[in-house]
Amino acid sequence: MDLSPEAIREVVERALSEDVGRGDLTTLALIPAEARAEARMVMREAGVVAGLPVLAAVFAAVDPALVVTARVADGTVAGAGAVIAEVAGPARGILTGERVALNLVQRLSGIATLTARYVAAVGDLPARVLDTRKTTPGLRALEKYAVRVGGGTNHRFGLHDAILIKDNHLALLAAQGVGVGDAVRRAQAAAGPMVRIEVEADTVAQARAAADAGANLILLDNMAPDELRAAVATIGGRAKLEASGGITLETICAVAETGVDYISVGALTHSARALDIGLDIV
Amino acid sequence: MDLSPEAIREVVERALSEDVGRGDLTTLALIPAEARAEARMVMREAGVVAGLPVLAAVFAAVDPALVVTARVADGTVAGAGAVIAEVAGPARGILTGERVALNLVQRLSGIATLTARYVAAVGDLPARVLDTRKTTPGLRALEKYAVRVGGGTNHRFGLHDAILIKDNHLALLAAQGVGVGDAVRRAQAAAGPMVRIEVEADTVAQARAAADAGANLILLDNMAPDELRAAVATIGGRAKLEASGGITLETICAVAETGVDYISVGALTHSARALDIGLDIV
Amino acid sequence: MDLSPEAIREVVERALSEDVGRGDLTTLALIPAEARAEARMVMREAGVVAGLPVLAAVFAAVDPALVVTARVADGTVAGAGAVIAEVAGPARGILTGERVALNLVQRLSGIATLTARYVAAVGDLPARVLDTRKTTPGLRALEKYAVRVGGGTNHRFGLHDAILIKDNHLALLAAQGVGVGDAVRRAQAAAGPMVRIEVEADTVAQARAAADAGANLILLDNMAPDELRAAVATIGGRAKLEASGGITLETICAVAETGVDYISVGALTHSARALDIGLDIV
Amino acid sequence: MDLSPEAIREVVERALSEDVGRGDLTTLALIPAEARAEARMVMREAGVVAGLPVLAAVFAAVDPALVVTARVADGTVAGAGAVIAEVAGPARGILTGERVALNLVQRLSGIATLTARYVAAVGDLPARVLDTRKTTPGLRALEKYAVRVGGGTNHRFGLHDAILIKDNHLALLAAQGVGVGDAVRRAQAAAGPMVRIEVEADTVAQARAAADAGANLILLDNMAPDELRAAVATIGGRAKLEASGGITLETICAVAETGVDYISVGALTHSARALDIGLDIV
Amino acid sequence: MDLSPEAIREVVERALSEDVGRGDLTTLALIPAEARAEARMVMREAGVVAGLPVLAAVFAAVDPALVVTARVADGTVAGAGAVIAEVAGPARGILTGERVALNLVQRLSGIATLTARYVAAVGDLPARVLDTRKTTPGLRALEKYAVRVGGGTNHRFGLHDAILIKDNHLALLAAQGVGVGDAVRRAQAAAGPMVRIEVEADTVAQARAAADAGANLILLDNMAPDELRAAVATIGGRAKLEASGGITLETICAVAETGVDYISVGALTHSARALDIGLDIV
Amino acid sequence: MDLSPEAIREVVERALSEDVGRGDLTTLALIPAEARAEARMVMREAGVVAGLPVLAAVFAAVDPALVVTARVADGTVAGAGAVIAEVAGPARGILTGERVALNLVQRLSGIATLTARYVAAVGDLPARVLDTRKTTPGLRALEKYAVRVGGGTNHRFGLHDAILIKDNHLALLAAQGVGVGDAVRRAQAAAGPMVRIEVEADTVAQARAAADAGANLILLDNMAPDELRAAVATIGGRAKLEASGGITLETICAVAETGVDYISVGALTHSARALDIGLDIV
Repeated sequence: MDLSPEAIREVVERALSEDVGRGDLTTLALIPAEARAEARMVMREAGVVAGLPVLAAVFAAVDPALVVTARVADGTVAGAGAVIAEVAGPARGILTGERVALNLVQRLSGIATLTARYVAAVGDLPARVLDTRKTTPGLRALEKYAVRVGGGTNHRFGLHDAILIKDNHLALLAAQGVGVGDAVRRAQAAAGPMVRIEVEADTVAQARAAADAGANLILLDNMAPDELRAAVATIGGRAKLEASGGITLETICAVAETGVDYISVGALTHSARALDIGLDIV
Repeated sequence: MDLSPEAIREVVERALSEDVGRGDLTTLALIPAEARAEARMVMREAGVVAGLPVLAAVFAAVDPALVVTARVADGTVAGAGAVIAEVAGPARGILTGERVALNLVQRLSGIATLTARYVAAVGDLPARVLDTRKTTPGLRALEKYAVRVGGGTNHRFGLHDAILIKDNHLALLAAQGVGVGDAVRRAQAAAGPMVRIEVEADTVAQARAAADAGANLILLDNMAPDELRAAVATIGGRAKLEASGGITLETICAVAETGVDYISVGALTHSARALDIGLDIV
Repeated sequence: MDLSPEAIREVVERALSEDVGRGDLTTLALIPAEARAEARMVMREAGVVAGLPVLAAVFAAVDPALVVTARVADGTVAGAGAVIAEVAGPARGILTGERVALNLVQRLSGIATLTARYVAAVGDLPARVLDTRKTTPGLRALEKYAVRVGGGTNHRFGLHDAILIKDNHLALLAAQGVGVGDAVRRAQAAAGPMVRIEVEADTVAQARAAADAGANLILLDNMAPDELRAAVATIGGRAKLEASGGITLETICAVAETGVDYISVGALTHSARALDIGLDIV
Repeated sequence: MDLSPEAIREVVERALSEDVGRGDLTTLALIPAEARAEARMVMREAGVVAGLPVLAAVFAAVDPALVVTARVADGTVAGAGAVIAEVAGPARGILTGERVALNLVQRLSGIATLTARYVAAVGDLPARVLDTRKTTPGLRALEKYAVRVGGGTNHRFGLHDAILIKDNHLALLAAQGVGVGDAVRRAQAAAGPMVRIEVEADTVAQARAAADAGANLILLDNMAPDELRAAVATIGGRAKLEASGGITLETICAVAETGVDYISVGALTHSARALDIGLDIV
Repeated sequence: MDLSPEAIREVVERALSEDVGRGDLTTLALIPAEARAEARMVMREAGVVAGLPVLAAVFAAVDPALVVTARVADGTVAGAGAVIAEVAGPARGILTGERVALNLVQRLSGIATLTARYVAAVGDLPARVLDTRKTTPGLRALEKYAVRVGGGTNHRFGLHDAILIKDNHLALLAAQGVGVGDAVRRAQAAAGPMVRIEVEADTVAQARAAADAGANLILLDNMAPDELRAAVATIGGRAKLEASGGITLETICAVAETGVDYISVGALTHSARALDIGLDIV
Repeated sequence: MDLSPEAIREVVERALSEDVGRGDLTTLALIPAEARAEARMVMREAGVVAGLPVLAAVFAAVDPALVVTARVADGTVAGAGAVIAEVAGPARGILTGERVALNLVQRLSGIATLTARYVAAVGDLPARVLDTRKTTPGLRALEKYAVRVGGGTNHRFGLHDAILIKDNHLALLAAQGVGVGDAVRRAQAAAGPMVRIEVEADTVAQARAAADAGANLILLDNMAPDELRAAVATIGGRAKLEASGGITLETICAVAETGVDYISVGALTHSARALDIGLDIV
């Protein structure tokens, strides 16, 4: 569930550069350098907290003299009104870092909260909830971390670390007379031993062809529960199965009941609402 | 309504670096370098299109040999099924750039579409819909552009280009015996002639004090319509007035009817849902 | 009068990279790593000190073990021979950072000193002395800080944070049949509530047209005192007025006497002479 | 006299990022994307032109569709009113790039012009005019180019490419009982065959000691012409000699007459006035 | 076998910045800007060519007017004296880019040539030759490409894209009472479906425990052929097996004969000799 | 023998970004954040140690809580089994930084060790062993430091800090009727006083021409000992002489005996084998 400090630092520097730039005109004009303050980060609605290490990094980057104390750990389900962290030190730094800190923690907590709802909807069924590459450009590592915090599992991180033969690849190969099986074998020949191969399938027949060729994972795209069930039966454990496409909080349980191993949900990252969290000066 | 090429380039490079990194394993393994393809970007739901210059920049960065042709202009209201752009050239580049292009255009179009709904809800009333600093870290310039495309107006871009004396500033100043009027005067003394000064007010009395001190704009925070109306009457045009705080599609019209000049809505950027747009190889 | 640490850091890193690069050959060859030294930064001529936070940042970047102690604050008028700061610690670091530290402090103090002379020339008149965008590429934030240290006021920071409709804009618009009034209205429609609009005027008539259209500030370009006085009378406080163009220490008082609100002087930054300051090992 | 394209690009990108940032609000609001214009860069006072390749790079970076045509070459002595370059293409790009282009060309031409005056003052005497490391942080490569354009010669580029044993080094070494001769020998042992060694000398005796030890160049600091003459006689060509310290246009000829090989002038870069050059839309 | 243009560009820019910096003093001093030349890249010894796309990128970065024509494709076995590429255009660019181009192509060809020798030593046996993370810092993507060009297969690209539980991990876990099986299960719980898990084993028993727990790949560290054979028999295809540790050209065939799936050789990248290749002006 | 901290930092950041990226999956999955460990860096073969400051920088960048203690100094000849450094602190950081630390220290120690062998082969003869620009792209400053650690001397650092007129320059100049002497004089006119000029000579006659024209150093390319001896006699100390081209451990002594001042060996950096060094958890 951990997050690399380097991934945090890069996002924080960019966000501060964008929001603060050459300086916080208001704070520099009004608040003396020696003024000190304390603030509490408070949940304005209930949800899963995610991003406290980012919070700490924001204020440390604004002013190393600020002390951030987390009151809960990432992954905590906190109710409205709960204090999740405190910041103390030079007042200027608190005011200047507030918006960037909130923007990040609200977004990550929003993703973790939505993920947790999907995970809860799956209940005790073994299927795991996956994210996708439909993340905010520049924030992928953080958003995928928030998915983990919410109980989800990460799919690949980018085009560079796993092979996923999608419909568009298959269409282009088909035009050259290359079928699914040959596609998988080409991929195996090119990939090293640490690279997994997944194939997108629109039909059970395609899924079988992919499994026959040795795909590690098969993405079953936009299949109804009956079709998913047929795929599970046909593949019989030879490859892992991922259901994908338009799955919602209402439908995920029925999908999980089909016996697929994974269910991927783009909405976890592309459409999560920011959680309402505030920073109150005390 | 325009967007600086530099702002686009930085976001596109970072997004490609994150998603593609050392290379698109799948495409490099399967698709020959000389294969060519065409693809259409198609609306899967209706909405306001935003981000076509970004789309062009993504594919140009992936492979300068790709030709992107916009079929509509940003700001167009397009229905489900509408083709908004076409890409033609080396197949590898289309496949490799697809996800980054979609992630950006879907997000920007989602913001423009939501903004347009807020603007429509205001109708013929003079109030203008404003965005906030609650944007995605690293994407502020693009997201504020999408707000403009949707008919909204941009508030300040960061802490560096305007003065907004918020509740937390006032609280800290009050603890030192400095009131609203003095705060405004301090800000005027520090600011150059091109910097505007806005003050957040929780009550009509505070708003009046700010206007008396010469604030250019007053943010009326979380006021009910009656209170807003009282503020409008009290200020009488001496400063521009901005209503802010929890305003929704359902309540914005009532807020606009109070006579405020601006209504700011954080949800435009922090909670817009990505618009469903796809890329189909033809 | 404050300066963002981030703005300092970027300039300091670039300057050290340029001057020191892979290492200070002389110092590495001659001075043992364990040698310690103390040095004093001494005014070789009188002037207004500016840039001591930059000085501290330079030596901290060269070697965090160096201790910099400011003996005066930025803005102090120091006489020839005055010690303005001391540096103590590893001798190598002092020798390696010396030139970059001096280059920056000399330049900033030069700007502050020149600004202070212009401000003094205005005397008790209400007009404020403004800088321009004629700054050294890469050093704008620091140079505008030095202007503030010298008692001046900052005009806009770049093309991105305020609107200034200049003669070239007006000429191009005129060729399309667009006059000053329409230009201002177009700008108002595009700008958000936190963006001020200034218009350059060559004649009193133009100034009046701009004021009529609602410009916040009018730049009176290259006008003689009589013409400035006429503009002041004509505008009658409806907009702020800025005199600009070839104003010198000899002429600024006469300009200020016309009643304009601001007087901008490009020479503050584009032609300030470096102040003579030295670093003496003790 | 040439300048690396890479050195130009870095400065231009930084300058545009600083001045234009997320966009030129005025131009985007007022000038249509399809408007075209032509502009002439005109000397407002006479001087030596320097920086035309930088000019071209600025406009190319703003908009590759802009065409820049140099009317003279760098190094040309141009009179007031002379057109030195023309720019044609999209009007927006001309307006947006104008200030950065002028800031750079004015500064570089100012340095070239001042250098040319020093070189002219030396006349037919063999001494060459040198620059120093007293350059603007971030602009060293460009400013040293401008010195060459003006007829001057470059001293070292940084602490990394040559050895100059200065007074502060000698003072620290003296405290450890190490004299000039040993210092030179230590430097020779550390330096490779492509690194030259210069020693600062305050007296003729020190200069002789340095030459005896094999220094390639000796910096004669703040010596009067008689002392310089004595040094020239004493060294007798065993090392090159550089006069330095407070040399002005009035005194440089007397210094050159002493027979020194080089005369270094910090003012060439740290205190050159920007040359007045304008950009006129036609 | 392909290489991402982005990976090339970053290395090329850094290499040119390091070698050329502010300019190629010799070439700028001696060769006129308008001089043109042609050059041939010639093998001075036989080997496998790798890096021609990098060659093209170097000269394009130095001067876009240079035309690079590859005479063979990467992967070609070329004899001494063979011309593998030609460069034509401005003479300055050829001279300035020569060393960086050679440094990269010589290194990559050296790696490809050494890899090909290891692959040849394995002969018709099914074992594939793997690289490791023992690459040159900053050049990993290029060096792993060269391994592929030489017929080798890539192991993981970094700590971020696959799990390899090494002896040091196991030792730390053992100190906490956690065995191999539990380690694998912890890793499976943390990893998403696209991440493979490899375990290092020093004994056949450890290898069996790892396979029992579901490891995808087992690294058999420093085992003699007999032990490797025993591991192959014991695992029986339940996991892929990688032999590693001190394998040379002399011993690799015997290792391959044991039936392992992969043989990793750090020397491919950490100790390959640069291939002798020259650039001759014609 | 010292190395700039800045040069280290840049390499270390790039190497960690490449190898660790968004995180060390294995270590994050298996090792608790609070686990602590100690490790020893141990020589697995004898050699000259180089790179301990880099080692410290790697672990500091991974986790500032790690304490690195060097047990020897760079330049020490250490036998197999010797402990050269220790690392203690959070176990995660040790595991995550291990490979990057080893890759760098192994490479630098390999270069230092090979250099020391060449220097030893020269014995008491006065010739000094030089490196070349045949370094690993991106690692030049570190590799040249390792050469110094091994007792070698650095040639120039890049095209930017010294003039070396090579065969290709001379060939192009010859085609324009410009001979060696004129080439040297052109170079002298362009170069400042701190830039040395070396000329490559294929024959004794060329060497003499270069010396006559005032070259500081002459590179005698691929000459047999007799020819080198003739060159030494002919030049008679008027310029320094550097033998270059295919010199090996077997031939270097014979070359040194000819009386040349320097012998350059590209193999020091382009073909040094990594020294075998390990990191053992204790």
